[in-house]
Amino acid sequence: MPATPDSKVYRPRNPEATKELLLASAGEEFAEHGYAGARIDRIADGAHTNKRMIYAYFGDKDGLFSAVLERQIGSLVQAVPLIDGDLVGFAAARFDYMLANPKARRLAAWRTFERAEPTAAERESYRARVDSVAAAQRAGKLTSDIPAVDLFALVLRMTESWLSAPPGMRSAADGDPQSKERLEEHRAALVLAVRRLVEPTPQNP
Amino acid sequence: MPATPDSKVYRPRNPEATKELLLASAGEEFAEHGYAGARIDRIADGAHTNKRMIYAYFGDKDGLFSAVLERQIGSLVQAVPLIDGDLVGFAAARFDYMLANPKARRLAAWRTFERAEPTAAERESYRARVDSVAAAQRAGKLTSDIPAVDLFALVLRMTESWLSAPPGMRSAADGDPQSKERLEEHRAALVLAVRRLVEPTPQNP
Repeated sequence: MPATPDSKVYRPRNPEATKELLLASAGEEFAEHGYAGARIDRIADGAHTNKRMIYAYFGDKDGLFSAVLERQIGSLVQAVPLIDGDLVGFAAARFDYMLANPKARRLAAWRTFERAEPTAAERESYRARVDSVAAAQRAGKLTSDIPAVDLFALVLRMTESWLSAPPGMRSAADGDPQSKERLEEHRAALVLAVRRLVEPTPQNP
Repeated sequence: MPATPDSKVYRPRNPEATKELLLASAGEEFAEHGYAGARIDRIADGAHTNKRMIYAYFGDKDGLFSAVLERQIGSLVQAVPLIDGDLVGFAAARFDYMLANPKARRLAAWRTFERAEPTAAERESYRARVDSVAAAQRAGKLTSDIPAVDLFALVLRMTESWLSAPPGMRSAADGDPQSKERLEEHRAALVLAVRRLVEPTPQNP
């Protein structure tokens, strides 16, 4: 392929590699600035490519955001599976994932905040997990006096209660909020709280 | 005062009224677009005044954002008091407030998201409520095996678990998520969940 003097028009030799670089660069940009604040030029620069490639591969900014979200959700659902409605294990794993992946935390927050419509994959992923909770309730493994959708929504937010606490809240805790000991304490508090909420007892069958 | 031909320079006759209009306009703008996305020109237009007034009264965009947040937090803390560490009543009242004030919800989310440093008033407001929880724990009114700061952070997030659920989550619920009946169900689930979490029992003194 002959070199072209116009640097705005070039064809990547490896489209898959370029797409990956674009997704990685877009993930950084969207996590930092959100959808509205993200700049297509910066995303292209970050991937050492041209913004025309973004339009060629993803259609538009919206299509690129969707692709980043689907990738992110795929990673999260894989890293934090909900097995047999085990909400306690799920909560601990999600805390660990969110602690290790602050970018995923920001991206999830922007996503909830900036976009009203779920994608088909998102819909499916939530529906499957709510169904898993409902099945565990029917099997007597989880308390059944709270609807499955609420039980899952409550636990989902509880997993972020410390890591995404308002800054004023974090300042009300003793000691360095980022220290390993403190984080272990918050994790233990979360696990205890979720267990108490979801376990069936004679009082809460 | 003589009229000036330069529409960019005028002095409001009632500084307090202008300040109020600016705070109201800024509240709308920050709730909609967040701090980074807010436009000073739009805020001035919405208050039928000039952006110089913003700089005169609030110093800069940051000062204006702080003023809006302080006002908002004042309203919320007044509408949703935490009395004698009653986290169940607090959760129900906060759900009701957040349902009735979607703008407050957006503003609180932007605030947590976009600004790392709490103001002195925020610090004080969280500290006072955590202290209230700790006192209720010592009095045997709340379970004491979860640290006060975690108990409060958990309940805070639980109150938003439905209203700020990811859109994919909301789509996993049956029926119209905004119907009065459904919202009553979510509220009842929240109250039950918080009660179960915080009440001292023989197992969880």
